[in-house]
Amino acid sequence: MKIVIIGGVAGGASAATRARRLNEDCEIVLLERGQEPSFANCGMPYYVGGEIKSRNSLLVAPIERLRQRYRLDVRIRSEAIKIDRVNKHVTVINLATSEEYNESFDKLIIATGASPFRPSTPGIDSSRILELRDLKDADRMHALATANAKHAVVIGAGFIGMEVAENLVRRGIKVTIIQISDQILPTWDSEMITTIEDHVRKQEVDVRLNESVERFEEIEAGTKLAIYLKSGEMILADFAVVSVGVRPESKLAKDSDIVCGARGGIATNPSMQTNDPDIYAVGDAVQVIDVVTKRTTQIPLAGPANRQGRIAADHIFSHKSNYRGTQGTAIVGVFGMTAAMTGQSEKLLKRDATPHEKIYIHPMDHAGYYPGAQPMTLKLLFDPSNGKVLGAQAVGTTGVDKRIDILAIAIQAGMTVFDLEEVELCYAPQYGSAKDPINMAGFVASGVVRGDQPIVHCDKIHDNSDSNYFLLDVRSEAEFAAGHIPNAINIDLDRLRERLNEIPKDRPIATYCKVGQRGYMALRILVQKGFKVVNISGGYTSWCHRFPSGS
Amino acid sequence: MKIVIIGGVAGGASAATRARRLNEDCEIVLLERGQEPSFANCGMPYYVGGEIKSRNSLLVAPIERLRQRYRLDVRIRSEAIKIDRVNKHVTVINLATSEEYNESFDKLIIATGASPFRPSTPGIDSSRILELRDLKDADRMHALATANAKHAVVIGAGFIGMEVAENLVRRGIKVTIIQISDQILPTWDSEMITTIEDHVRKQEVDVRLNESVERFEEIEAGTKLAIYLKSGEMILADFAVVSVGVRPESKLAKDSDIVCGARGGIATNPSMQTNDPDIYAVGDAVQVIDVVTKRTTQIPLAGPANRQGRIAADHIFSHKSNYRGTQGTAIVGVFGMTAAMTGQSEKLLKRDATPHEKIYIHPMDHAGYYPGAQPMTLKLLFDPSNGKVLGAQAVGTTGVDKRIDILAIAIQAGMTVFDLEEVELCYAPQYGSAKDPINMAGFVASGVVRGDQPIVHCDKIHDNSDSNYFLLDVRSEAEFAAGHIPNAINIDLDRLRERLNEIPKDRPIATYCKVGQRGYMALRILVQKGFKVVNISGGYTSWCHRFPSGS
Repeated sequence: MKIVIIGGVAGGASAATRARRLNEDCEIVLLERGQEPSFANCGMPYYVGGEIKSRNSLLVAPIERLRQRYRLDVRIRSEAIKIDRVNKHVTVINLATSEEYNESFDKLIIATGASPFRPSTPGIDSSRILELRDLKDADRMHALATANAKHAVVIGAGFIGMEVAENLVRRGIKVTIIQISDQILPTWDSEMITTIEDHVRKQEVDVRLNESVERFEEIEAGTKLAIYLKSGEMILADFAVVSVGVRPESKLAKDSDIVCGARGGIATNPSMQTNDPDIYAVGDAVQVIDVVTKRTTQIPLAGPANRQGRIAADHIFSHKSNYRGTQGTAIVGVFGMTAAMTGQSEKLLKRDATPHEKIYIHPMDHAGYYPGAQPMTLKLLFDPSNGKVLGAQAVGTTGVDKRIDILAIAIQAGMTVFDLEEVELCYAPQYGSAKDPINMAGFVASGVVRGDQPIVHCDKIHDNSDSNYFLLDVRSEAEFAAGHIPNAINIDLDRLRERLNEIPKDRPIATYCKVGQRGYMALRILVQKGFKVVNISGGYTSWCHRFPSGS
Repeated sequence: MKIVIIGGVAGGASAATRARRLNEDCEIVLLERGQEPSFANCGMPYYVGGEIKSRNSLLVAPIERLRQRYRLDVRIRSEAIKIDRVNKHVTVINLATSEEYNESFDKLIIATGASPFRPSTPGIDSSRILELRDLKDADRMHALATANAKHAVVIGAGFIGMEVAENLVRRGIKVTIIQISDQILPTWDSEMITTIEDHVRKQEVDVRLNESVERFEEIEAGTKLAIYLKSGEMILADFAVVSVGVRPESKLAKDSDIVCGARGGIATNPSMQTNDPDIYAVGDAVQVIDVVTKRTTQIPLAGPANRQGRIAADHIFSHKSNYRGTQGTAIVGVFGMTAAMTGQSEKLLKRDATPHEKIYIHPMDHAGYYPGAQPMTLKLLFDPSNGKVLGAQAVGTTGVDKRIDILAIAIQAGMTVFDLEEVELCYAPQYGSAKDPINMAGFVASGVVRGDQPIVHCDKIHDNSDSNYFLLDVRSEAEFAAGHIPNAINIDLDRLRERLNEIPKDRPIATYCKVGQRGYMALRILVQKGFKVVNISGGYTSWCHRFPSGS
């Protein structure tokens, strides 16, 4: 048995080492275009910023170990340029010598990954415009960041863009972020990200939304880059980093009639086999089934790439294991804040017209009475007909990864919001709460599904002309005075029962407080007194996230 | 409708506020023996130690708020002394005035909690022997700890004992811990706790295992306490804290023929009703169904108490909600280390003769290449016939709570170790790993269930006379030289294929490395070469945890 693997890193290297563990005698050829078959690409921004001091720590599995311990025939600077399916060989070019040769295979695993999308903006070919895909890119960015650079422009405010921005600031470089849409981190729903946007601006990062680049121009004898924006402005920078998304690198597969999906990813079955049963594909190059929607999609993630590599090797050696699909669990750290998500976002549910409801809560990461408790915002998306969890997003500092990981398992298990009420988590005051944020989200969402706790969202309140809600702020007078939703009337919850006569019986009431709990109590009181009431989910805090300007 | 609730804090206060949210018109009487109907008892040790500065922060829901916002008839210093089920009233004694009166009820909720077990040791009644159940206790301990105390003895090394010990050390007090069994934190399996024991000793805490108190004696005009140990020694201390477990406080229930279980807890159905359908019981006073074993047990925990309170109120007002049982998710912080667990321990599985297998892994809490990664040990218990997760324990510093919370959900969902292989968690290098500890545990345990990765445990190796394993240490020579299992032979994994002739064909081989991964690779190589091999789960690290003296 001879296995040829095109591409190292997560998917390819996992497939290779798993194959060796399963079979001591097979021949395994690992073709890697770059210098290193296995490196920590998620660590590269932090190497640029100096948080990771040594470049060596990025080398997850050094070539020597792969050769010695796993008996892999690792060939670096070796690019596969053609797959001959009939004769079962791959044409390889040795990038060091430019020699071409054919390498035969019994089984082929394509792990070519995804490549950064390079827009066709005029001037894009300047050597001062970087991307961040491999160690070569990281080395160049590291060199520029530790030289005398004063100002850099990051184009694209996704995961990599934000991580690069943070790390350039860590190097003392002034950073401008150019983002074509109206929010940073566009994988998240926009209202979840406004606090992070605010936080990023407080680090003196210049964030430009709804903006894009018209053209780049090298000036001052190629030592500076002039970046001309659509809005007319010109920004002068030492260099720019382009990170506007990735595309599956599937050309090699397509050229040999391996079936690819609409968005370019290689199509596979759950065993990671392509339409050619001797050819597998894994990692960012493949399309995956979304666990929640069961639709095909492209979600480039390291964890799934590892698993797919393992599964391909399993299948080659007749071990049962199937890829269940990807649910898009993701996390990013931004200047000490954290955004995480799993499952469907609201924007995806809307795009696909999937029935959904959402709730917001703003709990502390651990018991409020224990020092150091940090607030977070948690958004839970669920099917209003049966309470099935569809997705979740959280933003805060500590404890955000934990809650999204918990909800990732809940989605995997097909749990409902009723199950979340019953979740039994670790509780000591420095770690969590007796009613953990997960329980709280379950309580609130279950109340919505059961009808005990009708809610309304900020958008509907903002555009109040149709619904004509009587806006009832049940916080204290001091809280109300410090800021409230326009046109709200203030009655402190603790006075509500005495002041019912001030509330109209002929209009729907929308209650709110700071985060939703007092608003809910007010709702319960009013409902029982015959009023028609909804509670604004997430309260004034959610209002401020949705309409940060206060409008 | 008139509801009387006996006892505040978690269960009682949750029942009361939930009942009010569900019904605005019912009468709710909350009888509390102490001064405060709702306080954070889990925070008390940290108030004693000064980590929580203000006593007020322990008051979760001040009486005034319960009265005003929830319209509860809160009666403090009011002890229920008799339940008359026929006439449906409770006899209450006002502890301030010693007056007795009868309070009628339509529905009664018993939330009397659990009381610290007070051993009958001679001298136990000294005022210098404290326990830590309520705010009164916390106040006394706080006063002693902030006065001139130099030395305290903590009797019982469970959750509260260890938290108290840590917080007395924080106050500069020398602490001796007396524990009757051979380990601290006896809820955990002993080998999981040895690193914490070591860590506690490094804080200059004097930990005495297999030790107990013969008698106490006040000396120096009652300003000191002499503690005479079974071993013959006498320790002189300023005060002692006794925390040797709790007992459900069910006498009131028993006296009125409410059915209690063998271990004293009040028996309820999933709606928290006792054998009297108008009488409910919630919190530490009740017995619960263990989620994993389906047997009745006593597990005092704040989260379940809260949920049970909510469920009792739901049932009174005809809302559907059932208590699914308790799985014993628990966590404790000990001088910066963390121990957490969920589901069954190995000792419980053994006691009940439940078929089980276990694996150990020793991963980092986040990607090793990112600064600050901390090691943890994770033990997973599962059914070897189908891989169903039965329990988990973890010990380390950061990230321990997260992994146990994830496994708590996995147990709730009835997941198997195969599901854990597929879990898709948050990954960025500062938060986790592309192969998270949860995935790794899934990989290893699945390998065991599938038969790809036969394992053996340290106890069997330690007592090697029967099995006659050839012990093969596949770490580097330097690692081997620094310490190894007695009688092991060292062949570096990377030289193994060349040195197969040194390995006997006629004896079973037990491979090991530092944590298990290289040992597993060695096993895969050897198995395919016809050797009979097992891997020591958790490797030399697990060996050192199990036999910390190195024997």
